[in-house]
Amino acid sequence: MSRMTLADIAAALNQPPLAHAHASRVVTGIAALVDAGPSDVTMIASDAYLKQFAKTNAAAVIAQRRVRLPTNTGKVIFAVDDVEKAVADVLTLFAPPVQRPEPGIDTAARICDLARLGPGCAIGPNAVIGRGAQLGSRVSIHAGVVIGDDCSIGDDCDIYPNVVIRERVSIGNRVAIHAGSVIGSDGFGYRWDGRQHLKVPQIGTVIIEDDVEIGSCVCIDRAKFGSTRIGRGTKIDNLVQIAHNVQIGPHSIIVGQTGIAGSVKLGTGVVLGGQTAVRDHITIGDGAMVAARSAIANNVPAKATVSGMPALPHRQSLREQAAFRRLPELIVQVRKMQEEIDRLKKKA
Amino acid sequence: MSRMTLADIAAALNQPPLAHAHASRVVTGIAALVDAGPSDVTMIASDAYLKQFAKTNAAAVIAQRRVRLPTNTGKVIFAVDDVEKAVADVLTLFAPPVQRPEPGIDTAARICDLARLGPGCAIGPNAVIGRGAQLGSRVSIHAGVVIGDDCSIGDDCDIYPNVVIRERVSIGNRVAIHAGSVIGSDGFGYRWDGRQHLKVPQIGTVIIEDDVEIGSCVCIDRAKFGSTRIGRGTKIDNLVQIAHNVQIGPHSIIVGQTGIAGSVKLGTGVVLGGQTAVRDHITIGDGAMVAARSAIANNVPAKATVSGMPALPHRQSLREQAAFRRLPELIVQVRKMQEEIDRLKKKA
Amino acid sequence: MSRMTLADIAAALNQPPLAHAHASRVVTGIAALVDAGPSDVTMIASDAYLKQFAKTNAAAVIAQRRVRLPTNTGKVIFAVDDVEKAVADVLTLFAPPVQRPEPGIDTAARICDLARLGPGCAIGPNAVIGRGAQLGSRVSIHAGVVIGDDCSIGDDCDIYPNVVIRERVSIGNRVAIHAGSVIGSDGFGYRWDGRQHLKVPQIGTVIIEDDVEIGSCVCIDRAKFGSTRIGRGTKIDNLVQIAHNVQIGPHSIIVGQTGIAGSVKLGTGVVLGGQTAVRDHITIGDGAMVAARSAIANNVPAKATVSGMPALPHRQSLREQAAFRRLPELIVQVRKMQEEIDRLKKKA
Repeated sequence: MSRMTLADIAAALNQPPLAHAHASRVVTGIAALVDAGPSDVTMIASDAYLKQFAKTNAAAVIAQRRVRLPTNTGKVIFAVDDVEKAVADVLTLFAPPVQRPEPGIDTAARICDLARLGPGCAIGPNAVIGRGAQLGSRVSIHAGVVIGDDCSIGDDCDIYPNVVIRERVSIGNRVAIHAGSVIGSDGFGYRWDGRQHLKVPQIGTVIIEDDVEIGSCVCIDRAKFGSTRIGRGTKIDNLVQIAHNVQIGPHSIIVGQTGIAGSVKLGTGVVLGGQTAVRDHITIGDGAMVAARSAIANNVPAKATVSGMPALPHRQSLREQAAFRRLPELIVQVRKMQEEIDRLKKKA
Repeated sequence: MSRMTLADIAAALNQPPLAHAHASRVVTGIAALVDAGPSDVTMIASDAYLKQFAKTNAAAVIAQRRVRLPTNTGKVIFAVDDVEKAVADVLTLFAPPVQRPEPGIDTAARICDLARLGPGCAIGPNAVIGRGAQLGSRVSIHAGVVIGDDCSIGDDCDIYPNVVIRERVSIGNRVAIHAGSVIGSDGFGYRWDGRQHLKVPQIGTVIIEDDVEIGSCVCIDRAKFGSTRIGRGTKIDNLVQIAHNVQIGPHSIIVGQTGIAGSVKLGTGVVLGGQTAVRDHITIGDGAMVAARSAIANNVPAKATVSGMPALPHRQSLREQAAFRRLPELIVQVRKMQEEIDRLKKKA
Repeated sequence: MSRMTLADIAAALNQPPLAHAHASRVVTGIAALVDAGPSDVTMIASDAYLKQFAKTNAAAVIAQRRVRLPTNTGKVIFAVDDVEKAVADVLTLFAPPVQRPEPGIDTAARICDLARLGPGCAIGPNAVIGRGAQLGSRVSIHAGVVIGDDCSIGDDCDIYPNVVIRERVSIGNRVAIHAGSVIGSDGFGYRWDGRQHLKVPQIGTVIIEDDVEIGSCVCIDRAKFGSTRIGRGTKIDNLVQIAHNVQIGPHSIIVGQTGIAGSVKLGTGVVLGGQTAVRDHITIGDGAMVAARSAIANNVPAKATVSGMPALPHRQSLREQAAFRRLPELIVQVRKMQEEIDRLKKKA
């Protein structure tokens, strides 16, 4: 763990200088209010945690400015407008360097003829780089990664252990792909000829633009023809399935275990909650939000918030859910009404 | 990209000879109507795309015979009965060769004693083949693949990078397994002894029959005893979970992220849509179709089409969905009816 | 296959000695009643299988004591109180040894400086062990495994092929991690700065306690700070997603394709059925049971059984499902009642 003084923390958070007694105090990490020890920094974002605040052992507390802290706590308080940002800044301070292979080419790496590597690349043991592949500057290819022929990878990428990138895939700058993911396997396409499923050749590729981050064990299939594309700045969580010819716009967020079927188009800044399913050929507009576990069977307009299975506008979905909750009592009520009607009919 | 003349395309599609001016025109790929450039072939399958057809820059158009194309378009038209098949044929023409390891055994591959390889095998760098494993002819074992002791693999298989096939698994001819998949891990079986979950040994194996294709990051567990079996010609998409002792019949289609619990039996030609779940010990009959995201909790008869959670016959499921859509208004209607009844009761 | 006499089986099951004619009979495996051949042992757990029992060719039958077997079957019967346990005992007898790398360090393994290995470790080809990593005694690191810097692994662990364990992860004793799983990738954390998603450093780690077993292609992310923790004796099936800062108590069971979002807390002995989703920051109490495909959006009290989406107490969920089944007929009934009310109003 890194060692930092509270003065370092204060500086990182643009805080006024601390009293001398506090400034030199050493902290080694960040922890929640209840877990923090005397060498940790902690944080409080709302009044709901004031009880935990009272008991924390932390050396210092990053506090949302509007939290009603007691006066004279004796604690070092860093009052901030955005706790989340401040915590991220402190995490950055404490972050150990990312483990990367040694610069240069490991003796147990295999770089095929005609591959071209930019300066500062680090190729780990047992990595395999195919014929005609091109890597930019400062690319880290971790142990066991397999990169196919004629792939292109930009600058400053991290390709984590045992990732497989199949031939002719194109990857931009500052892309991270976490361990075990597979980019560019064949799309799932067959044709029934009356006797068997015949494979439809998948001759397209995958394009991953700049600043994309892809989690572990993610599968992104190559296009039938043309390209499957992941737009600039999009972030993809673990175990996500992206089928052939999908087009994902920039700055989208795809949460874990989501599945996106063939030829789906996502706009800019779309958010798909975890375990969502999107039917093939659907279009989801810019800025749309899809709640976790939704099943998208119809196009979603820009900026819509949808949920459910099949997904509906979120308000409608909530209303239907609420109605569903009342269904058993509704059945009882209808039975009673029927009895009342029967009595009225007898009288009439 | 391959280069082809329109005459080559015409020949592949059994079309009449083209006029000389067209025949020698060079095309290099296939693309959708709106994306196609002057060196692409494109396709139109229905009248719905006639507007796009009018504007396409493609060199030639594969057209469903019944599409009402304008006359005198000046475009080269290949009229066909089955656009999907024709496109697949053209994709086959353009398909670059599949990247495979160099024939022979890479110097960085590890072939254990007593493994036997047929003629024409290509074993990539860092592949590991266990004791007593047997490979047929022309098998491609890509980089980083690990094949356990006593496995058997037939002829003409492609085992893509970083696949793991555990000991004693048996694989037929012309099987493709895409990157990162794991075949033959232990089934998930434990017994609670009052203090802890004790592992139940999983001593069976996995049998994968001829012409099966398996996507990326698929898990197929070995049987508790006997075999987990994937029938001839079945195709499995990415990130599918197949538990111990599952029996999948021939020519089935299992779409991405589906999970099949222990001892399930699927017949011939079953289709499971994406993200489906099948409860353990269920039987699904020949030719049954299961809609995406269904949860199968009861046996499904042959040729049935089911959907929903829990899955029901598709028509019933649609009717219930439609009823669900009307539920909020039903609640309002029932409340009004109650008021009417109350008024009638007062009068009576 | 191992060869065993019926006398060996009888001894393993604490059965009285067999007649000499039976005792020396050789069996080589275990199979279901209908599949068993004359060199198999089989089992019957309930009267429902008596027809199959009548026709079985098995050499011997493990029978639940209360099953009403016919007398004078001529078959060797091992009557037991717990068939499941007896079968597990016989599977243990027949289980071939788990395939492990040769003891010692393979010539194609890479052990970085300052890594420390206990006695009896077996490190397979192309395994990579990072700087400062510590392994206990008798640890098997299979081919292609990548272990990051400063990881710690206890005694008697099996880390199967191509698993990736990122830096600083801590693993207890007797832990098994099946092929292709990834432990310790970055948690999925970003902050939108108005222009792009900025990565929030994930500086924590993962702690996996003793006797945990983890399936294939499982992803367990490192914590933002502090630790993601998998409690002692917990068993995790294939393709499960466990996000950053999740805390899973001891002796829990997580079935395949389940996804657990960030900072979720599971108590002791929790069971999550397959394809379950758990929303971030949820707490699930000790001994709670969650049915397959549930979506947990609210805290679950200890010992509760819940199901559905969103999950409710299982009885309520069943009642709502039953009500849902009746909804189409309810709509018809309400329409008829409306007509009756209208008639009554006319009369009144």
